[in-house]
Amino acid sequence: MTPLTASRSVLDTASAPGDGVRTRTITWTDPARARFRLRGEDGLTQLRAIMRGDAAPPPAAALLGMEITEAERGRVLFSLVADEIHENPMGTMHGGIIATLVDSAMGCAVASMLDAGVGYTTLELKINYVRPIVRTTGRLHAEGRVVHFGGRVATTDARVVDDAGTLYAHATSTCLVIRPGARR
Amino acid sequence: MTPLTASRSVLDTASAPGDGVRTRTITWTDPARARFRLRGEDGLTQLRAIMRGDAAPPPAAALLGMEITEAERGRVLFSLVADEIHENPMGTMHGGIIATLVDSAMGCAVASMLDAGVGYTTLELKINYVRPIVRTTGRLHAEGRVVHFGGRVATTDARVVDDAGTLYAHATSTCLVIRPGARR
Amino acid sequence: MTPLTASRSVLDTASAPGDGVRTRTITWTDPARARFRLRGEDGLTQLRAIMRGDAAPPPAAALLGMEITEAERGRVLFSLVADEIHENPMGTMHGGIIATLVDSAMGCAVASMLDAGVGYTTLELKINYVRPIVRTTGRLHAEGRVVHFGGRVATTDARVVDDAGTLYAHATSTCLVIRPGARR
Amino acid sequence: MTPLTASRSVLDTASAPGDGVRTRTITWTDPARARFRLRGEDGLTQLRAIMRGDAAPPPAAALLGMEITEAERGRVLFSLVADEIHENPMGTMHGGIIATLVDSAMGCAVASMLDAGVGYTTLELKINYVRPIVRTTGRLHAEGRVVHFGGRVATTDARVVDDAGTLYAHATSTCLVIRPGARR
Repeated sequence: MTPLTASRSVLDTASAPGDGVRTRTITWTDPARARFRLRGEDGLTQLRAIMRGDAAPPPAAALLGMEITEAERGRVLFSLVADEIHENPMGTMHGGIIATLVDSAMGCAVASMLDAGVGYTTLELKINYVRPIVRTTGRLHAEGRVVHFGGRVATTDARVVDDAGTLYAHATSTCLVIRPGARR
Repeated sequence: MTPLTASRSVLDTASAPGDGVRTRTITWTDPARARFRLRGEDGLTQLRAIMRGDAAPPPAAALLGMEITEAERGRVLFSLVADEIHENPMGTMHGGIIATLVDSAMGCAVASMLDAGVGYTTLELKINYVRPIVRTTGRLHAEGRVVHFGGRVATTDARVVDDAGTLYAHATSTCLVIRPGARR
Repeated sequence: MTPLTASRSVLDTASAPGDGVRTRTITWTDPARARFRLRGEDGLTQLRAIMRGDAAPPPAAALLGMEITEAERGRVLFSLVADEIHENPMGTMHGGIIATLVDSAMGCAVASMLDAGVGYTTLELKINYVRPIVRTTGRLHAEGRVVHFGGRVATTDARVVDDAGTLYAHATSTCLVIRPGARR
Repeated sequence: MTPLTASRSVLDTASAPGDGVRTRTITWTDPARARFRLRGEDGLTQLRAIMRGDAAPPPAAALLGMEITEAERGRVLFSLVADEIHENPMGTMHGGIIATLVDSAMGCAVASMLDAGVGYTTLELKINYVRPIVRTTGRLHAEGRVVHFGGRVATTDARVVDDAGTLYAHATSTCLVIRPGARR
């Protein structure tokens, strides 16, 4: 994914040595282009185009450094490497960033089952945090799966593990499936 | 908050005109310094030091552009301006970023009630999304409040509104209060 | 509500004295009759008919001993007196029974806003338990309120307090509004 | 489980034929006796004593008609047959009763891992309802599993299926593990 690869971390370059100031440049692509390019495709085709780098990932993925690593019907994996830039005041990964990772994996798991022209929106998500994530935790993998797929509502779950399979968080969500012509 | 003020958006500067590539430089300060500086203070004093700019906000706040705008015992407000960089593939603010905003407000509401040396960790959060947030939504305000504060567990809620008071999301969370010497 | 009043507790009558066996007779009315009687009414009119005793409460309310004590547009109160019959193995009120109380209050708060012919279903609920409820806790009051009411989805919250206003539990839920002719 | 077997449904016997009034007698045993009898046992031994009928189930299980059907370390199954007495005003099983079933399965899954003298309390649970349950749905099976078991906190999940394995609901919960001498 070009925009992610292009995201660079330049530590302490914008300031005097030793003052502890860090900068990072985030690069992303006008998201309207990707939406235009992918319109008319079904959900799984769209996800795979982003995964292969044929379409730009959304800005939020570039901002956090998330990427899709696997996508099949009803199951999507996202990956993120723990980084100082994700830290909360306690020096662990901000719970909201972990929520962003699972929300992405769960939402895309629903998207992977949608025909062209059908959309979805997340109504709610709940996440349990079971272990702190620190910089040395390394790469995280969030697997989102569709648990129930109905005419109007889909439910999902997700797990966040490290390379060794240790569990850090788990989540569920409820999504509304929006078919063309349906009342909003 | 200096690091937030220092965060600059430079559109299309790193690439040829019209190619739709955007870049932004995020600036933050070594978070270990802020933790060292604030150790020995109670939670509310720590939050107010960050709010006034006397201590650096955590990296995650700089990354997303969040800031504390009010802090009193048991109630904390965070603010964030909707921006293209927060967008999911549908062109609305990523639900995880909204979760980061409410997690910050709810966690800091608990922190605001903690004596020096007492910590907390978020066990879980649930968020309901009731309206999409788009770039033109403008400034969002997340108010986190402590609902119950016990010896070992605190619960919270939060609401996300815009300048006009329109509701976009609401949430609850459960936090574990960690006292010195307690078994982890 | 006649069926609730008719529910009787007869302690130790069906067995030899001192053996600790208790029995209680639950009385309810064929629920199809109440549904037939209330068809064609809007939600608030239906709730008030049950509250006044003009229509039978549903079997689950008779089973647990719950009753509606207030109903207005967007806000419904349920009441339940803590009883040995509600106890879990630890001797406190079973969390599921508290969930039944808040689910009733939140669902009926949504129902109170529905026109005749419009239905709803609860997609999910989350409840936080903040204090144990025991037999001597006495009467519990669950106030359910609509937080957001949209074309297809409504969200709610609820609080459970005793006569003195002490908080025991709080909850939120997501409901799907089902309009005539909508795809299920 | 004797008290459950003793729970009888006697339709229309307490009233004139055709008036639609039903009564049922619930039988349970003084729960303090079971707690006294099981004190000093570890959690799994306690659950198996109740499952085999060597100790009385708690009153809430007798009230709803739930029973434990399997119990191993970290995994407990509960069973309940859908019945008119469980119905909400729409004629489907009350969501709170389904919540009682999953809360029982998830709480007992945690209990199954506790040494003698160690207790737990449920901090929160979230349940998703994916299909309505009606009288003809028959027997429901709720499988509760421990997802994470830590020093102070355990998390769980649960699924509710019928005899054919069709999914009706799924849930997660957070429990606090209470060790002797720990601060409440």
